[in-house]
Amino acid sequence: MSVVPIVDIDDVLFVSVGDELEDQAVATLQQELAERVVATRARGVLIDISVLDVVDSYMARALHEIAAATALLSARTVVVGMRPEVAITLAELGLTLPGMLTALSVREGLAALR
Amino acid sequence: MSVVPIVDIDDVLFVSVGDELEDQAVATLQQELAERVVATRARGVLIDISVLDVVDSYMARALHEIAAATALLSARTVVVGMRPEVAITLAELGLTLPGMLTALSVREGLAALR
Repeated sequence: MSVVPIVDIDDVLFVSVGDELEDQAVATLQQELAERVVATRARGVLIDISVLDVVDSYMARALHEIAAATALLSARTVVVGMRPEVAITLAELGLTLPGMLTALSVREGLAALR
Repeated sequence: MSVVPIVDIDDVLFVSVGDELEDQAVATLQQELAERVVATRARGVLIDISVLDVVDSYMARALHEIAAATALLSARTVVVGMRPEVAITLAELGLTLPGMLTALSVREGLAALR
């Protein structure tokens, strides 16, 4: 059973990442997302991080790897809901989330995938 | 005689890569694919890797080189049938198969080439 539920919204997989996601849960999420992308033929993965007020380098790397694996499986990843202070911290750390789209809201993220 | 048969599907060359492809066989496959692309005026090369449960850095590099040579010969390469766990491992290793399209199935790969 996953710690983070993955929700189907039409042809998009939606995940809302909560605080305090442990390393093992991130690995499980990566695995489940990859399997669900193949099983559902999803066009994209939408990761909502609006709850997070910190994105450290571990989480940034996890997001990057999810996006890379998803891209290899012919889908795109959009990170939505990033807080301004998170964006500033990521920029300061040089973590620019390559290979990922970002959108300010779920609605805009869905639009970006269509 | 090639170890890996190359099949014409209309204007696309189809190759199904089996397990345990030796280095010499990969080199032969690269050579034959390049020659067949020119000889048949193929629009694309479809490489099915659904049998593989591991894609190491050598295989990733070989796929990349096939795609690069194919692109220089005006055709596109689509890798199809990648397993979720293979995608995750490639992402972890930072092997993102640049210059290649991916598709989940042969049918979707053919559609991507048309």
